[in-house]
Amino acid sequence: MTNKTQTLYKSYIIEEYFATKKPYYVSISDEIELFEAAYKQKLPVLFKGPTGCGKTRFIEYMAYKIGQEMKKSKKNNNSQINIPLVTIACHEDLTASDLVGRYLLEGDSTVWLDGPLTRAVKAGGICYLDEVVEARKDTTVIIHPLTDHRRILPVEKKGELLEAADGFLLVLSYNPGYQSALKDLKHSTRQRFIAIEFDYPSVEKETEIIAHESGLDDGTSNKLAILGEKIRNLKEHGLPEGASTRLLIYAAKMISQGIKPVRACQVAVNWAVTDDSLLHQGIQEVITSIFPE
Amino acid sequence: MTNKTQTLYKSYIIEEYFATKKPYYVSISDEIELFEAAYKQKLPVLFKGPTGCGKTRFIEYMAYKIGQEMKKSKKNNNSQINIPLVTIACHEDLTASDLVGRYLLEGDSTVWLDGPLTRAVKAGGICYLDEVVEARKDTTVIIHPLTDHRRILPVEKKGELLEAADGFLLVLSYNPGYQSALKDLKHSTRQRFIAIEFDYPSVEKETEIIAHESGLDDGTSNKLAILGEKIRNLKEHGLPEGASTRLLIYAAKMISQGIKPVRACQVAVNWAVTDDSLLHQGIQEVITSIFPE
Amino acid sequence: MTNKTQTLYKSYIIEEYFATKKPYYVSISDEIELFEAAYKQKLPVLFKGPTGCGKTRFIEYMAYKIGQEMKKSKKNNNSQINIPLVTIACHEDLTASDLVGRYLLEGDSTVWLDGPLTRAVKAGGICYLDEVVEARKDTTVIIHPLTDHRRILPVEKKGELLEAADGFLLVLSYNPGYQSALKDLKHSTRQRFIAIEFDYPSVEKETEIIAHESGLDDGTSNKLAILGEKIRNLKEHGLPEGASTRLLIYAAKMISQGIKPVRACQVAVNWAVTDDSLLHQGIQEVITSIFPE
Amino acid sequence: MTNKTQTLYKSYIIEEYFATKKPYYVSISDEIELFEAAYKQKLPVLFKGPTGCGKTRFIEYMAYKIGQEMKKSKKNNNSQINIPLVTIACHEDLTASDLVGRYLLEGDSTVWLDGPLTRAVKAGGICYLDEVVEARKDTTVIIHPLTDHRRILPVEKKGELLEAADGFLLVLSYNPGYQSALKDLKHSTRQRFIAIEFDYPSVEKETEIIAHESGLDDGTSNKLAILGEKIRNLKEHGLPEGASTRLLIYAAKMISQGIKPVRACQVAVNWAVTDDSLLHQGIQEVITSIFPE
Amino acid sequence: MTNKTQTLYKSYIIEEYFATKKPYYVSISDEIELFEAAYKQKLPVLFKGPTGCGKTRFIEYMAYKIGQEMKKSKKNNNSQINIPLVTIACHEDLTASDLVGRYLLEGDSTVWLDGPLTRAVKAGGICYLDEVVEARKDTTVIIHPLTDHRRILPVEKKGELLEAADGFLLVLSYNPGYQSALKDLKHSTRQRFIAIEFDYPSVEKETEIIAHESGLDDGTSNKLAILGEKIRNLKEHGLPEGASTRLLIYAAKMISQGIKPVRACQVAVNWAVTDDSLLHQGIQEVITSIFPE
Amino acid sequence: MTNKTQTLYKSYIIEEYFATKKPYYVSISDEIELFEAAYKQKLPVLFKGPTGCGKTRFIEYMAYKIGQEMKKSKKNNNSQINIPLVTIACHEDLTASDLVGRYLLEGDSTVWLDGPLTRAVKAGGICYLDEVVEARKDTTVIIHPLTDHRRILPVEKKGELLEAADGFLLVLSYNPGYQSALKDLKHSTRQRFIAIEFDYPSVEKETEIIAHESGLDDGTSNKLAILGEKIRNLKEHGLPEGASTRLLIYAAKMISQGIKPVRACQVAVNWAVTDDSLLHQGIQEVITSIFPE
Repeated sequence: MTNKTQTLYKSYIIEEYFATKKPYYVSISDEIELFEAAYKQKLPVLFKGPTGCGKTRFIEYMAYKIGQEMKKSKKNNNSQINIPLVTIACHEDLTASDLVGRYLLEGDSTVWLDGPLTRAVKAGGICYLDEVVEARKDTTVIIHPLTDHRRILPVEKKGELLEAADGFLLVLSYNPGYQSALKDLKHSTRQRFIAIEFDYPSVEKETEIIAHESGLDDGTSNKLAILGEKIRNLKEHGLPEGASTRLLIYAAKMISQGIKPVRACQVAVNWAVTDDSLLHQGIQEVITSIFPE
Repeated sequence: MTNKTQTLYKSYIIEEYFATKKPYYVSISDEIELFEAAYKQKLPVLFKGPTGCGKTRFIEYMAYKIGQEMKKSKKNNNSQINIPLVTIACHEDLTASDLVGRYLLEGDSTVWLDGPLTRAVKAGGICYLDEVVEARKDTTVIIHPLTDHRRILPVEKKGELLEAADGFLLVLSYNPGYQSALKDLKHSTRQRFIAIEFDYPSVEKETEIIAHESGLDDGTSNKLAILGEKIRNLKEHGLPEGASTRLLIYAAKMISQGIKPVRACQVAVNWAVTDDSLLHQGIQEVITSIFPE
Repeated sequence: MTNKTQTLYKSYIIEEYFATKKPYYVSISDEIELFEAAYKQKLPVLFKGPTGCGKTRFIEYMAYKIGQEMKKSKKNNNSQINIPLVTIACHEDLTASDLVGRYLLEGDSTVWLDGPLTRAVKAGGICYLDEVVEARKDTTVIIHPLTDHRRILPVEKKGELLEAADGFLLVLSYNPGYQSALKDLKHSTRQRFIAIEFDYPSVEKETEIIAHESGLDDGTSNKLAILGEKIRNLKEHGLPEGASTRLLIYAAKMISQGIKPVRACQVAVNWAVTDDSLLHQGIQEVITSIFPE
Repeated sequence: MTNKTQTLYKSYIIEEYFATKKPYYVSISDEIELFEAAYKQKLPVLFKGPTGCGKTRFIEYMAYKIGQEMKKSKKNNNSQINIPLVTIACHEDLTASDLVGRYLLEGDSTVWLDGPLTRAVKAGGICYLDEVVEARKDTTVIIHPLTDHRRILPVEKKGELLEAADGFLLVLSYNPGYQSALKDLKHSTRQRFIAIEFDYPSVEKETEIIAHESGLDDGTSNKLAILGEKIRNLKEHGLPEGASTRLLIYAAKMISQGIKPVRACQVAVNWAVTDDSLLHQGIQEVITSIFPE
Repeated sequence: MTNKTQTLYKSYIIEEYFATKKPYYVSISDEIELFEAAYKQKLPVLFKGPTGCGKTRFIEYMAYKIGQEMKKSKKNNNSQINIPLVTIACHEDLTASDLVGRYLLEGDSTVWLDGPLTRAVKAGGICYLDEVVEARKDTTVIIHPLTDHRRILPVEKKGELLEAADGFLLVLSYNPGYQSALKDLKHSTRQRFIAIEFDYPSVEKETEIIAHESGLDDGTSNKLAILGEKIRNLKEHGLPEGASTRLLIYAAKMISQGIKPVRACQVAVNWAVTDDSLLHQGIQEVITSIFPE
Repeated sequence: MTNKTQTLYKSYIIEEYFATKKPYYVSISDEIELFEAAYKQKLPVLFKGPTGCGKTRFIEYMAYKIGQEMKKSKKNNNSQINIPLVTIACHEDLTASDLVGRYLLEGDSTVWLDGPLTRAVKAGGICYLDEVVEARKDTTVIIHPLTDHRRILPVEKKGELLEAADGFLLVLSYNPGYQSALKDLKHSTRQRFIAIEFDYPSVEKETEIIAHESGLDDGTSNKLAILGEKIRNLKEHGLPEGASTRLLIYAAKMISQGIKPVRACQVAVNWAVTDDSLLHQGIQEVITSIFPE
């Protein structure tokens, strides 16, 4: 059985994983121009915004777009030229070694293994630290010398300094909505980045996104977008975070499988968003007002 | 003696452990259709519900059922086609390495050992993270890229990304009833799943389950189901969690061994459910009202 | 000197340590029947009760008794058939690896060493986790799949699942008297066990036990049993836990060495039970009322 | 220089370090008889009492005395028969492995190294755990099976159980005076020991001890003993712990070096006992009233 | 692809990384004279001041300047003579071993690797510990013997003491503005350093810096400097830290890419400085008053 | 470059680092006689006093002085006879292993490396534990058996006991001024030491010290000593700790480099002592009153 399973999945080297076709992204404001200006000036960027509003998709789109423009500007068609995008989901136990690298014992000698940040620094890629405030403090400090004029990464376990390759850029994301005081970004870190704020798309744009991603008709997609907007307005009634575009797409996909809209919205949106039974009731009323049975 | 004991137990490779016959499961609502729709759309699923109401049994049943349907749709009788079900009981010390894998020293070289999540990703199985809020934060973050359109698992210690095999699906369970604020599921995690809520079965269904599992007669099984329902109503009187179906089956099994019903219910239900002597008294009164001596 | 000391002690393989003669145990209620019913139905058991009331002695007795009955039922005299009893004293630093096993470097290769729980699972023995609430959470979670219908132990570091041998049973003990809220047994754990509550023996039975264990005469043993009962009644006056049967036996043994009863009770009971000088005075008055000088 | 320094110190195997002459000990009460009775009955012993009142000296004395009596009773003069005394100063980071033993890499294979508790269990010695409440909980639990009728030490990393050699006895010390609630001895531990309470010696006995240990004349030694008694009475005025006999001996030794008594008592007693300047003043007044200049 | 990426970045030995041209630095006060006096007297120096006010740039400038003067005074043109500057970004997980060094397994033997502090001590360089209060306490204590007359670094894992090379100097930075009481510099540490306080430059000097660093015209640079001053005055209105010179340069660079000044200041200054929507409004009003559209 | 840097610094074995000339020390009271008496009687010593008042210098002076006297008393001129002084700066992460020693892997076998305390015990030197309350509890307990009549160091990882060489003495320092209740010295530790309290020198002595150490004239040195005294009196106005003699010497050295006295005192004393702007103002007024411009 081992032989068979080996063909079921694909494996990539981290810095060699590229989008092979243009990622679908609907721009909300001038975020594309801002990012391009920052990239040209090598200014590190901080994305702020709620869960599931498209930050990850945006950085994928920009990595692809800048890579394409570099190809054009070089007037050749070498399809190998790409901007590697190295994404790191931060968490409480992420250490500096996880980012920079470590020694591993292999056979009878130790071998150094570059961490994902070092890979991005060497390959001249974009390094995207998702939810950076979750990381341990050593992680946020290790990136400081990469964000000033020196663009240097100290690899202390090897006694080395690395000067980042030309295309390298550091991008952080964080969600100011649910940060506790304990987990705030330190000023000595945040004042090293320009900041782009993201929000949910308008109903029109969200309709377009839902229909595109789920293959559902425009009418039902529009109802789901309106549902999203109404639930986000419930935030003042105790809902900690509104329904993301992702959840609306989930509901659309369930509907496209034959689940009734009211039930699809209940499991994909209402129950996914909260455990509170009073809020459940309120949201379900909103759902049935949009999808009367 | 070592020789003899080696024949007393059985050992399996994690991703090769399948149910060999159809697991017994009595459906409560439309959860089977919902799960099948989600599985076809590759939408990650979150199970919510109290202890011992059948979530684990349900996922075993679905893994078996989907596997059977895949066999039929392929119009052959290759009995090898199954959906591996990899179950991971989460706890406070479960690390990302426990899930993804680690290097082990073997002989004079190091060997990589895939963790259970990696095994499920490669084998295209269902990975069931039981009581996920108990896990450390790095564990909940490592699953994020597996739940978006990329379906990718970063194996950072090997510098690799794995694209999940086709049949892979991530399923989480959690019990919103006794979560503290500290151990809540983060929105950036929960908004990646559709949610199915579970509750205890009705008295009729529970009677059927108890009788089937214990071999006890329907009449006594029905009395135990009624007992279960009454104890769950005591929740407002300070009982933190109602008696699970599992405990009612335990009582039935003790009765089938000749223990008197009142005593069987005392040890299998009353003492198992709480240490509080006032509650003990109240529950025992309910028991004797149902099983008068 | 090394040669000589090697003969002073005995060493056993954990799962091959059996009681060679019937352990002395005086039954309090129907606990023997309850345990036998649970063992036949493979229902995990939870012992609740105060310090030193005989829980450990009971499990030793049952392991011996069930082993003897299995011999008889098999109608042969193979004295090798026994139920191994693997006892694990839980503590705050007990990890899942301590229970399940770990890799050890031996010579130039690593060797897997089964932990005590794995030994019991393989040998089909009773695994007794003493004071389970003291253990870390990963320890209590690792036992979950062993307590449902699958009776499985995941040995994740080897990528294996073990199906428990036929005679295997999991037994936990805990003392609800002095658990803090922080160290309570989770419902998802406790609702996997039937529960047997233990209490101190009656004065008559305790007299019998003290006399048997210490060799002291019945009259003095009876006075000590009365002392025990009176001190346990002081619990409402601030004594956190009453004097165990064990301490009364200690006092009896000191008396049998020629120490005066009043002094023997002071050092073996009064000073052992508390550091509070007011309680010391009160208890000493009880002692002198029973043993007037 | 390395050669020379190698001759400056002595090195012993832990369980082969014996007192070569009778330790000096002045008995306070019937503690010698109590300990001998407990040793004969193999009852574990707990010493309670303040800092520096002679608990450590007492256990050394008893180990020597019991060893001498065993020689006599065996009617030969084999001077090798001794009771090893293994003393372990407990602290917050003392783990079960520190007591029981661990594997060490030596050359190209791993070698097991017995910890001090295992050494005492094997050699049949007295194991003295000083200030046991300081130890981590796993340490206090590991000793439980050594204190009941089985007298067993589980060496889990080797999969072994050791039955203690005949002369083995476990002795704990602790100081109830400054234990916080957090660091109390658990009842499941303390109810496994008889308890002997110690206090400072009387002025007469302390005079004798000071004179013997320092070589100072009886008159000045008596003044120091009186000083000790008076300072201990200051405990109600905020002094957390009285001056130990050890500090009075220090003062005597400083005086014997020609330091004036008032100054010697200031540095060896007053400043050693507290940092509080008000208490300094009060104690210094006591000193000058006893040693007027 | 590996071959190509190897040419994209540069790698240096830590203590051999020197500024190759004079770092741009505009002096604020007499900090250059103070530092030169301290360096000649081998007095360790502490920099105090807010985020992004130029402390890092200043120490780079001084390392370059002192190196140049040493070359002149030696009357030769050996361009190799430089003062190595070893910068260490401190964080909560920085241990003494990270600074001093550790053993690494290489092939079949262990090799000692000097940490960055040891490298500076040996090479006679300036060791700059940035944000020292973030470091663990062992880190701050390890530097004590380097700051007194002995100028010694204990390398305890090698059993060695290192006497620092002649040019060695220790420099710390810290930001008293946002230190909590828990993370204060201990007096036993701080009283080993002379302290130089830094503040933001005047509007005139900041204009000069912004224009030089961004290439923007003087008029717009001056407006940005005025903006910086005004935002710093908002500190009394709840802004935890003012905008750094670095952020003003970022805004200038965004403007030079064609982004409108108001928008450039919003993303590079306003959103970068705070997440508070009220403060966002206030700052945006300041921005539009300076850059009316 | 590596070749050249190897000649810039000096390296010593820890226990072979001796002062080669008499350390400069001005005695404050009878501390020299007290220490000599304690050393002859082998009584462990505790130094109490504020930061920078000369405790470290004093212990260096005594090690040199006692070494010199031992040479004389032996009536030969073997210049090799010295008292090694092993200084250990204690910190929160200092473990018992750091003091006693550990196994290191070297080539294909493990080698034991003595820690600094073991080195002092073997070489018969003075072991000086600076700021001992900062150390972890295991560190303070490991020294107990070295301070009683046995003078023994248990090296548990080797299963050995070391009896200290003749000249060995344990000396601790701590600063009672800023100890929190959590970090107090336990009575079971402190009652093992005689205590010598240190304070700042008188103005006359401090003038002498400043002039000697900095080479500055007596008049200005005297002004600095007066400044020190006045700042120490500010302690009642909220200054947590007075200016140390070391800082006054720093100011003197800055003045000798041509920095104006007022500015030198500002950076070397005022800013070094506190971050509080009100205290800055008050201290600066004291400075200008002594050094009017």
